[in-house]
Amino acid sequence: MVKLNTNENPYPPSPRVLEAVTRAVNEGVRLYPDPEATALRRRAAETYGVPPDRIIVGNGSDELLALVLRATIDPGGRVAYPVPTYSLYDTMVATQGGEAVRLPFPSDFRLPSGLATTGARVTIVCNPNSPSGTLVPLGEIDALARSLTGLLVVDEAYVDFARQSALGLVGRRENVLVVRTLSKSYSLAGLRIGLAFGHPDLIAGLRTVKDSYNVSRLAQVAGEAALGDPAWMQANVARIRATRGRLSAHLTALGFQVLPSEANFVLARRPGHDLGPLARALAARDILVRHFAVLGLTDALRITVGTDAEVATLLAAIAETLEAR
Amino acid sequence: MVKLNTNENPYPPSPRVLEAVTRAVNEGVRLYPDPEATALRRRAAETYGVPPDRIIVGNGSDELLALVLRATIDPGGRVAYPVPTYSLYDTMVATQGGEAVRLPFPSDFRLPSGLATTGARVTIVCNPNSPSGTLVPLGEIDALARSLTGLLVVDEAYVDFARQSALGLVGRRENVLVVRTLSKSYSLAGLRIGLAFGHPDLIAGLRTVKDSYNVSRLAQVAGEAALGDPAWMQANVARIRATRGRLSAHLTALGFQVLPSEANFVLARRPGHDLGPLARALAARDILVRHFAVLGLTDALRITVGTDAEVATLLAAIAETLEAR
Repeated sequence: MVKLNTNENPYPPSPRVLEAVTRAVNEGVRLYPDPEATALRRRAAETYGVPPDRIIVGNGSDELLALVLRATIDPGGRVAYPVPTYSLYDTMVATQGGEAVRLPFPSDFRLPSGLATTGARVTIVCNPNSPSGTLVPLGEIDALARSLTGLLVVDEAYVDFARQSALGLVGRRENVLVVRTLSKSYSLAGLRIGLAFGHPDLIAGLRTVKDSYNVSRLAQVAGEAALGDPAWMQANVARIRATRGRLSAHLTALGFQVLPSEANFVLARRPGHDLGPLARALAARDILVRHFAVLGLTDALRITVGTDAEVATLLAAIAETLEAR
Repeated sequence: MVKLNTNENPYPPSPRVLEAVTRAVNEGVRLYPDPEATALRRRAAETYGVPPDRIIVGNGSDELLALVLRATIDPGGRVAYPVPTYSLYDTMVATQGGEAVRLPFPSDFRLPSGLATTGARVTIVCNPNSPSGTLVPLGEIDALARSLTGLLVVDEAYVDFARQSALGLVGRRENVLVVRTLSKSYSLAGLRIGLAFGHPDLIAGLRTVKDSYNVSRLAQVAGEAALGDPAWMQANVARIRATRGRLSAHLTALGFQVLPSEANFVLARRPGHDLGPLARALAARDILVRHFAVLGLTDALRITVGTDAEVATLLAAIAETLEAR
């Protein structure tokens, strides 16, 4: 099975993470975890240069995004974001009884004009964006934060694969919350560790709506160890970026339009073609990629950057499938 | 430190749990967990004799309780429960924007009359109840379920320490949801594993409001292994019940009124006395018990049943502290 459909990291986490978690699998698991994830927050503070009272830990970044809406959105409250983007936002807004203000990205995936003036209580920018892989430059994020009266959530799930982050805005702009995950770059999707960075009052507000014991003891240990070995993550990111470049070039050679990606996946289009059949043909060969059966995306596949071997298998299968038509 | 304040199990989880989790600490953690927790639900189905489509797994039972309110309570929606009880219910109702209908227990902690006729969308009974430790007989739970038009949530966090469970009502009463946790009897508070049992439509509704990847890979493995070794849990429960009897008898001899407990803790009262100072005196000796500084409970301590040695230390310290007055 070549699994390139959910943007997992093809490389394992740091051996230090596995060692630390293994050590923590002992009778201490009978005790509740630290509700404040103090040690992990302290480590994150060192790693990112952000004080611990500006950091909250979640059961994955999905939980943190849900907490934001729970803390801020009353029924009918508006949440704005450019689309297409991470589909969870729609689900979360609906669950919270809010009103989604969905502004279409232009074809180059710059920020839609009008995003600054929706009057939304919360604006979300996934940056780099999924499924496009594109990055909105930091200057435009900063300008958006300055223009907004509400909260700006920058969902940086994929930012370690990009050239810029908005983390520096935390501390300078009170209305910016940056959300990160250890699922992608740190290869820890299975353990559920998310981090959010923002103004202490905002972080305190999120704490009041979270379950006390939201992050397990083993996840806290894993997160602390992972942030303690950034070189391992960076080496994997470097490999993935190199493979991403090759994947993009080969897909272009095969006739796809590939958006410039700053994430660990690429969006490859064949305008005028529905790529659902191609995705199904690949699945029949045990190669999983993501096809979105929604308006404006049927001509695209989102392909996770796997190992070089996985990518070679994928490219050969795509070439054969297209030739067979 | 003698930690008898948060109702953790003083005994470790089954060695089979630690072995299974240790084996699962491998590079597979780079992949997302199964959103459906299929293997754990299948194991729970065997253990409890309930089909898998009537089971959902949560990041602790706290998450499951929150999901219930998220799926059912609109702003102003009523949630009824007898009090005093698990304080999280108040927090969850407030977070969801609902209206809490709090009916005082009578002094014997039978169900308050009127609980069946509140018109609440959701009624919650913590059974055995915290902090009282008391159990409402199954017949009364069944009668309540029959009387209610809304949903009855039976929070059975402590039920493995009791003589009866309402799990048999699932399948017979469509409006009953039974919530369990592996934190207490299975000694897994640190790993966050909750289970809920109910009608398939209700379970499907809860799935729509949960985060996809709410339960980590290691928690799913731990839960499956724990349910696979019920004898280990039962042996620990038997020890705790025996210690509970001795603790209750000694506290009674020291002049406390002790409610009959069906949980892994006891509520000990000295009517007319504020026991806050006693709790603080014990804390100064590194013995933690729970004092609730709320109306009607200031004369009580909730004491987790620890090991025999921990309980002996506690009882000696209480005797000395009371004599010194």
